Amino acid sequence: MNPSSFSSTQRDQALRSGSVPVAHTAVKVEDGFWAPRLQAVRDHSVPLMYEHFKRDGHFALLQGTWTLGAEPIPYVFWESEVTKWLEAASYFLASQPDPDLEARVDEVIALLAANQQPDGYLNVWFTVVEPTKRWTNLRDWHELYCAGHLIEAAVAHFEATGKRSLLDVACRYAEQIETVFGREEGKRRGYCGHAEIELALIRLYRATRERRYLALAQYFVEERGSQPSYFDEEARARGEDPAAFWAKTYEYCQSHVHVREQETVVGHAVRAMYLYSAMADLAQELDDSSLFEACERLWRNLTSTRLYLTGGLGSSADNEGLTTDYDLPNQAAYAEMCAAIGLALWSHRMLLLDADRRYADMLERALYNGVLSGVSLDGSSFFYENPLASQGDHHRQEWYKCACCPPNAARLLASLGGYVYSVAENEIWAHLYLQSSAVLPVGGQQITLKQETTYPWDSVIRLRVEVGQPQTFAINVRIPGWCAMARLSVNGEEVSVEASLRKGYVRIERLWLSGATITLRLEAPVERIYPHPDVRADAGCVALQRGPLVYCLETADNPIPLHRIRLPETAVLESHFAPTVLGGIMRIQGTATVLETNDWADTLYRTTPARHSPYTFTAIPYYAWDHRQPGEMCVWIRTSAET
Amino acid sequence: MNPSSFSSTQRDQALRSGSVPVAHTAVKVEDGFWAPRLQAVRDHSVPLMYEHFKRDGHFALLQGTWTLGAEPIPYVFWESEVTKWLEAASYFLASQPDPDLEARVDEVIALLAANQQPDGYLNVWFTVVEPTKRWTNLRDWHELYCAGHLIEAAVAHFEATGKRSLLDVACRYAEQIETVFGREEGKRRGYCGHAEIELALIRLYRATRERRYLALAQYFVEERGSQPSYFDEEARARGEDPAAFWAKTYEYCQSHVHVREQETVVGHAVRAMYLYSAMADLAQELDDSSLFEACERLWRNLTSTRLYLTGGLGSSADNEGLTTDYDLPNQAAYAEMCAAIGLALWSHRMLLLDADRRYADMLERALYNGVLSGVSLDGSSFFYENPLASQGDHHRQEWYKCACCPPNAARLLASLGGYVYSVAENEIWAHLYLQSSAVLPVGGQQITLKQETTYPWDSVIRLRVEVGQPQTFAINVRIPGWCAMARLSVNGEEVSVEASLRKGYVRIERLWLSGATITLRLEAPVERIYPHPDVRADAGCVALQRGPLVYCLETADNPIPLHRIRLPETAVLESHFAPTVLGGIMRIQGTATVLETNDWADTLYRTTPARHSPYTFTAIPYYAWDHRQPGEMCVWIRTSAET
Repeated sequence: MNPSSFSSTQRDQALRSGSVPVAHTAVKVEDGFWAPRLQAVRDHSVPLMYEHFKRDGHFALLQGTWTLGAEPIPYVFWESEVTKWLEAASYFLASQPDPDLEARVDEVIALLAANQQPDGYLNVWFTVVEPTKRWTNLRDWHELYCAGHLIEAAVAHFEATGKRSLLDVACRYAEQIETVFGREEGKRRGYCGHAEIELALIRLYRATRERRYLALAQYFVEERGSQPSYFDEEARARGEDPAAFWAKTYEYCQSHVHVREQETVVGHAVRAMYLYSAMADLAQELDDSSLFEACERLWRNLTSTRLYLTGGLGSSADNEGLTTDYDLPNQAAYAEMCAAIGLALWSHRMLLLDADRRYADMLERALYNGVLSGVSLDGSSFFYENPLASQGDHHRQEWYKCACCPPNAARLLASLGGYVYSVAENEIWAHLYLQSSAVLPVGGQQITLKQETTYPWDSVIRLRVEVGQPQTFAINVRIPGWCAMARLSVNGEEVSVEASLRKGYVRIERLWLSGATITLRLEAPVERIYPHPDVRADAGCVALQRGPLVYCLETADNPIPLHRIRLPETAVLESHFAPTVLGGIMRIQGTATVLETNDWADTLYRTTPARHSPYTFTAIPYYAWDHRQPGEMCVWIRTSAET
Repeated sequence: MNPSSFSSTQRDQALRSGSVPVAHTAVKVEDGFWAPRLQAVRDHSVPLMYEHFKRDGHFALLQGTWTLGAEPIPYVFWESEVTKWLEAASYFLASQPDPDLEARVDEVIALLAANQQPDGYLNVWFTVVEPTKRWTNLRDWHELYCAGHLIEAAVAHFEATGKRSLLDVACRYAEQIETVFGREEGKRRGYCGHAEIELALIRLYRATRERRYLALAQYFVEERGSQPSYFDEEARARGEDPAAFWAKTYEYCQSHVHVREQETVVGHAVRAMYLYSAMADLAQELDDSSLFEACERLWRNLTSTRLYLTGGLGSSADNEGLTTDYDLPNQAAYAEMCAAIGLALWSHRMLLLDADRRYADMLERALYNGVLSGVSLDGSSFFYENPLASQGDHHRQEWYKCACCPPNAARLLASLGGYVYSVAENEIWAHLYLQSSAVLPVGGQQITLKQETTYPWDSVIRLRVEVGQPQTFAINVRIPGWCAMARLSVNGEEVSVEASLRKGYVRIERLWLSGATITLRLEAPVERIYPHPDVRADAGCVALQRGPLVYCLETADNPIPLHRIRLPETAVLESHFAPTVLGGIMRIQGTATVLETNDWADTLYRTTPARHSPYTFTAIPYYAWDHRQPGEMCVWIRTSAET
């Protein structure tokens, strides 16, 4: 689907209200909330990762100096950590020149390129570590997944620098893959156990307009789930019993049935998010409503039964993934950062297909909570798992043996600008609110759109339009789902939000003159959030949210066992900005009660309830937890109707 | 301490108010609650175990027909399962002749005896399976533990039948052990990783009055915890690094410090209970207040911070044991049946040292809840773990590969009569209430004491005294700790409970004539039980108890997710006897509320609380759970102040 080919009537008849993203470089992030985080990733995360690759052996593998027995033992997907880093570094290069970083990027690309085989194949594990095992275990060994990340890095690098050094490598490799996999005679009917190649190939298609990449992506997406299972045959070819697959079910890699028949979000959470992202991309490129509908169905399933309040997902460490409806343990939550990132990627793609704010709300929820929690304020340590409760023993680490998350966060945050707006022929959609200057292509003209805001702390947003010459187009302004009361004016003139709201966006179509200003005032009181009664883990609890931010209690602010705090339904909740705390945060405070233990003596159980005393609690944004002395943390707070 | 040597003044100066137990055969259990359970164990559990020993290879091991590679692979402590069965069977033989059972017992004893080595040693594992490893790993291999159970069986068999066939074997073995272990030159300074031999040797001493057995028991108890650790030295002798001990700490086997220095109940729960039982026995035999004080300290620690409401203990499967204060997870509770049995054994011994009702209360709590839950109503299946909550996937099994629990329950229940009373020179203590006829030795006469009661359902107890000739002595009647209002009369004349209560017992000293009747009326309303505020797992919850019985909710009675039920503080709770349900039980019913889901549509989180509707719940005694269709169970019910 090419939006420029649509008239405005056609748009509604086609795949909902499709739009296209803008390049992340088109939006300069100048935001008080986000810019320091992006800078921290650039200044600390990116160099730190490079050092780890050097120290741990990633580069040695690529250089051919790695030897069997070296510690740490590589993971089969180490290469993807390097290519995700290349992708992140490329985004940073695109928005701000940096000769040193560019030199490093070129050096790493040269290392990678040197490993490309004469036939185009490029996976260092299967040329250096296990050279006889190429394409023998697509189910477990991330071979096509690594190709996918190589391709994504190549596109990002090409778009950032104009250099084809990695792009040409990626194209040659994609073509080698095309000679191996497909439905044609003599090809293997395989696909990857970990989705990624699919969305990467679509991206490669978009960058090159080479339709063969799109066709290969379509094959990978549609072949998935075919019976008899390729994974079964492949296991037999290895001399293994397919039933010995440790995960027991191909739900683990979302290949239990064809993708259009999938109704429930199952298996490994990151794999699921990447697959659905590819399905959404494919729905857009092929204008395929059946794929979109499958995505919508999966979306509803996820968001109505299997998602943490933080936008985290994956309840179980066993499969790093989904379990059963309403099974959302807090302390044991896996909620891998990569899964929240995947949800952001998928949400964004759904939003491009259908400008419904629920997708933007989810993108925002994941970004401000489940993703952001994964990176320390200074960008130097990371969570792999993002639980919603802790007893004080869960901390960010500088690195992980399996370090998929840190470079994944870096590439998402480094390209944050690309998620703020999307455009169609004569339309702009404003999805995210953060202070920025954007230059957007609308109706053949470059429109400048400036956002002024201190969102998410103060929820007043000013959008200033600058046009070369007056032009008629529409700006679609998102009223976030968390906002019960919004006011909007254009050049000081009130616009009725209620009357013009469509799928959560207010469409303002007019002749825009330079200097025109949209002012959006979102009321963002502290909200109590209640869980569905079937969520056992949250029974009797309430969470606090303000704007897009989910809050939590920490021992650092509340030096008593957190489970002894009871938040009455009637307690007044106030928020105050604390500029010196945790980089500047809005804290929530209120009067709760705390269960007293001083009259229990040696008693463990008794027939009279515990006494309560008033207690002023302090909650902080979830993303900022675990930056002070170790202690307990909880998102869900026990409530009581008692005052 | 020999009670017959005390005058009544001496008694208070010595180790509190010491008493001695009566033989279990002195108390004929005729109780509507217990007699069917005992009969079920006799009719089903005992034959079932015998069949398993035959089928699984326990007997083959003893017969020398077991061969390496046979399935199932034996456990190093299989022999103890057989000897615990022998002990249980002996108790049944003592109370009711049964030639078939007696023949089986004789046959098994002959099998055991045939394995005794010329030097007296008897452990089939170390003569048949690993003949070179005798006494090389006391820490892990249960070698002395097995000897302990052999000795206990031997004493029980001797007391039941008068036959010395096993007693002589046990004495010879004990003497062989005495030649190996001790502080004397040339002996090993070892002791067992799993306490049991200690209390068994004291029992052997009491049966034979051979003081050497008591001395050996004292050595084993007191040597425990000596530094350098015997377990360290022993590991080095095996060529192992002591630091490689899987449990990491000798707290696991309560040998981290000397027993008198132990302050916290730690490690493997069953080992702890058996050790403390031996310490209490030794305190009695040696009149050693320092041992009693250590026991009291450990008792307070256990009951004030680490015990489940059911009398279960051991929060973790990892060490089958204790963790940290107030760490009492419900669904993940290990609460091995053997640990609750061990608590009953220890409680009983503490009660004999100090007639304080808190020990009897605990004995009763363990018996009616944590122990009884472990055996199905028909005696044909068993719980190993006794959690306080289930999602429907935890069920009693006919047998376990590690089958320590079933015969342990059998030997406790088969000797239940021995726990009802204890006596001193001119004193009787009535500890437990169950319909029975007892013949008790008091002041040189045999006193008959008949209990008439339908306890625990209806808590009226009539104690009728029959004496050959009028005699002056005291009957100490326990007022259970759970009872807030008790009335007591003798021959219809009211006795003030409040005025005469001492450590929870009312002492009635008088000249007793035949036909004199004590009537005790215990008010047993349904009680709400609240957990200490530091018990995280129970936060916001309440449990129900009536008399000594802890209650639970099951799906079979409450076909909605149990966590959606809220029990208001104000709800009226009623109990009704249901004669046809689960063998006849008192059910608790009341009006709670249930959280509704019908107005949630596709919403997982929202800003308005869930609606409540009234719901009439039904609770059943915890011991009776898991006898109907599989489903959820919980002891702790979410409470709310809302009505």
